[in-house]
Amino acid sequence: MSTKTRIGTVHHTSPSSRITTALQRMADVVGPDHAISDPQRQLPYLREWRDLYAGHAALVLMPGSTLEVAQILATANDAGIGVVPQAGNTGLVGGQIPSPSGTEVVVSVSRLTQVRAVDAAGTAMIVEAGLTLSEAQAVAERAGRMFPLSLASEGSCQIGGVLATNAGGVAVLTYGNARNLALGLEVVLADGQIWNGLKTLKKDNTGYDLRDLFIGSEGTLGVITAAVLKLFPRPAETATAFVTLPDVTSVLALFHLAEERAHEGLTAFEFMSRLSVDLVLRHIADTRLPFEHPAPWYVLIEISSAVEGGAASAALERLLGQAADKGLVRDAALARSLAQARGLWRLRETASEAQKPEGGSIKHDVSVPVARIPEFLEKAAPVVEQVCPGARPVVLGHFGDGNVHYNVSQPLGMDKAAFLALWEPMSAAVNDLIAAMGGSISAEHGIGQMKRAELSRFKSPIELALMRKIKAALDPKGILNPGKLL
Amino acid sequence: MSTKTRIGTVHHTSPSSRITTALQRMADVVGPDHAISDPQRQLPYLREWRDLYAGHAALVLMPGSTLEVAQILATANDAGIGVVPQAGNTGLVGGQIPSPSGTEVVVSVSRLTQVRAVDAAGTAMIVEAGLTLSEAQAVAERAGRMFPLSLASEGSCQIGGVLATNAGGVAVLTYGNARNLALGLEVVLADGQIWNGLKTLKKDNTGYDLRDLFIGSEGTLGVITAAVLKLFPRPAETATAFVTLPDVTSVLALFHLAEERAHEGLTAFEFMSRLSVDLVLRHIADTRLPFEHPAPWYVLIEISSAVEGGAASAALERLLGQAADKGLVRDAALARSLAQARGLWRLRETASEAQKPEGGSIKHDVSVPVARIPEFLEKAAPVVEQVCPGARPVVLGHFGDGNVHYNVSQPLGMDKAAFLALWEPMSAAVNDLIAAMGGSISAEHGIGQMKRAELSRFKSPIELALMRKIKAALDPKGILNPGKLL
Repeated sequence: MSTKTRIGTVHHTSPSSRITTALQRMADVVGPDHAISDPQRQLPYLREWRDLYAGHAALVLMPGSTLEVAQILATANDAGIGVVPQAGNTGLVGGQIPSPSGTEVVVSVSRLTQVRAVDAAGTAMIVEAGLTLSEAQAVAERAGRMFPLSLASEGSCQIGGVLATNAGGVAVLTYGNARNLALGLEVVLADGQIWNGLKTLKKDNTGYDLRDLFIGSEGTLGVITAAVLKLFPRPAETATAFVTLPDVTSVLALFHLAEERAHEGLTAFEFMSRLSVDLVLRHIADTRLPFEHPAPWYVLIEISSAVEGGAASAALERLLGQAADKGLVRDAALARSLAQARGLWRLRETASEAQKPEGGSIKHDVSVPVARIPEFLEKAAPVVEQVCPGARPVVLGHFGDGNVHYNVSQPLGMDKAAFLALWEPMSAAVNDLIAAMGGSISAEHGIGQMKRAELSRFKSPIELALMRKIKAALDPKGILNPGKLL
Repeated sequence: MSTKTRIGTVHHTSPSSRITTALQRMADVVGPDHAISDPQRQLPYLREWRDLYAGHAALVLMPGSTLEVAQILATANDAGIGVVPQAGNTGLVGGQIPSPSGTEVVVSVSRLTQVRAVDAAGTAMIVEAGLTLSEAQAVAERAGRMFPLSLASEGSCQIGGVLATNAGGVAVLTYGNARNLALGLEVVLADGQIWNGLKTLKKDNTGYDLRDLFIGSEGTLGVITAAVLKLFPRPAETATAFVTLPDVTSVLALFHLAEERAHEGLTAFEFMSRLSVDLVLRHIADTRLPFEHPAPWYVLIEISSAVEGGAASAALERLLGQAADKGLVRDAALARSLAQARGLWRLRETASEAQKPEGGSIKHDVSVPVARIPEFLEKAAPVVEQVCPGARPVVLGHFGDGNVHYNVSQPLGMDKAAFLALWEPMSAAVNDLIAAMGGSISAEHGIGQMKRAELSRFKSPIELALMRKIKAALDPKGILNPGKLL
């Protein structure tokens, strides 16, 4: 008796007693050590690191197997209890955080950390949803292969969340989003049935693409419990450079040149505005600019080669020589060692962190066709200035994917809360511009809670109706991540 | 009056008169020149080139715009008339052929041939569903770019069909299936609404992946009328070789070596058994073996490079040298000109055609994990021999994708009809083996009519139920391509 997590008192007639019974049953599924009802101990699962979203939960459940997830969902579905799936809790749009109602249960997949198989030929591995991305990368590396997905949060984000949100990151240019890196999934459906779609095949044209329907659905159609991930050969050589450019049209010209010269070997093309780099140098320890003079724009380029013998470095040097001849690039720093390459990457990877000490930041993760990035930036600046004079766009992102992290830092000296109160009008104005340019208001972070209202403003009624029909078909009681995405 | 296509006599009360009225309305939408009721003129749309599938249709309609497709579907949906979408009519599983009932209408997208836009930066183009694949390739080429999808039927297959079936082909290794080459779609839904999903973005995480749900759904969820297709830089150089190997485990070893050495530069790795090549040499004009001696296995390898200067040829020669050192490759013929490369590709591309004069052929388009291809071939031979002693496996396919075209030609001298009567037991036996090995019974051709019964034998009830729920949600009256896939 005493080892059980007790959920209130059980009465057998009222609706609330049915809920209580169901919660007790769910707690029993995972056992007392893995059902958290104490609000204090629940805390890490109820809020995210930036404190933008916080909620309450009737229970936080930590199932230890797919079967336990299935039993929890079957019970929740019968009782009509909302389920918030959660992995590494690193999402940036509140998709993994329960509502403030306290009626939902959080189902964390963090204990599902098994590596179920690594294909002998090294083409794929089957891992569970709670494995962190960096652990997954390490498993691939131990097999002499590479899992290329790479994000700033890779040390704590988990595969289930990565797939549920179709995460992007810095290697999308060559390898694609999370969607492109999964061959198959195991998913627990709303009613607790388990869909085993763990195919390791490169080609399979037998029916509807259920895999891609679950990927990116942010836990609203099912709970991903395991996945078949594609593995790749590791590049034999990688060459990295950090360069300065006079304007953003030069960034575009350099990208086209790089794509033309390096083709599939162009494995990263990240851009940063001067302010973005300045904040890194100001706030992040052990960073330094590898040039004497700052510049309006910076680009981090990485070229990889399958063969040894200096091909990657040679290609990069050739590219930068051509770019200098065309007046696109001013200074260029080429990494001469792995440590130097890490130093250059650190300038890019700490960019989000470096914005925090500057006060409030209103973030936009948007995309436009690559060729229209200069136009977007030119038009966005006055839009921002109109909503909040003196606000400072901190621009960076995955240029080659058309993906701009258009983060707006507060004016110097302004009250942080007063600035953040402008989130809605600021985002609405930026998103209107994005919509007018045929762009996306969420390139890689998803919709979650943050952009739900905006979504209904920008998606056509026909598309929203299609999404709702699919949601109703797969989760008729609406228990899966209520209030998220749709 | 005389310029209208007249559909019987109109009576206003009976159900059949409602059908007649609806058919008349659909014919009026496209006009008399584009509504075919004469069975003789319908013939090209009612059967396919191998004469494996044939049907009847109340009407064959050739709409000239997306709006006309929408009006046809709205009318068909109201009246409950089955609609069979058709593009180039090159499908190999009967998905594009109406049933024998004569109650359905065929909606051909062949007149939708506009190139709506080619992105100035050359990253994408918007084309309509009736454009042939080779025309789409030519549009890309005129823009200085490449659309890499390539199939034997590319001269006649059309983009709508290519996407509806998620076609594969010879460039999947580097560029992926049709699914990977589309950024967005325009789709007419069952009730005639038009979903405009023609985004040209590389990244867009705003909601469910509707695009990939329609791609590969074989016209059962909507009619694709236009698509945004990805464009790529053209390789600066391509090197092609045709090589002989002693056994299929050497083919696997050569593939691993090629993948390791050429990485993303490995743009084709096609394999053929001796009999497969023998039939080409026997039945196809102007083909010759580029070696003195035939061999048990042949591989066509293509390596591409983004830069000029002989890198592709050098990589290929290095690879073949290493392969020879390891005893994997016996003879190798390297193309020294474009004409020679075309000659080598011709050996591979005419392989299907070359099977026809040999009598009946029972085809299997299957996949297994790449590393298990040798095991599959070893186990499949006795399975085939048991069903039909003397039957001759003609093996070829996209080795690097795990995709084997396991075509079984009739024994010499056997009656063709008697052999083809064995289709069901032969396929069932081969598919049982495939299922036991975790493979796919349709790697790239789809399900259509041919594999529908087999599908329900191999998909889990949970997956079939998921597919049926989605079908019911998007096409509640079941008018779209009835009797196909599900």
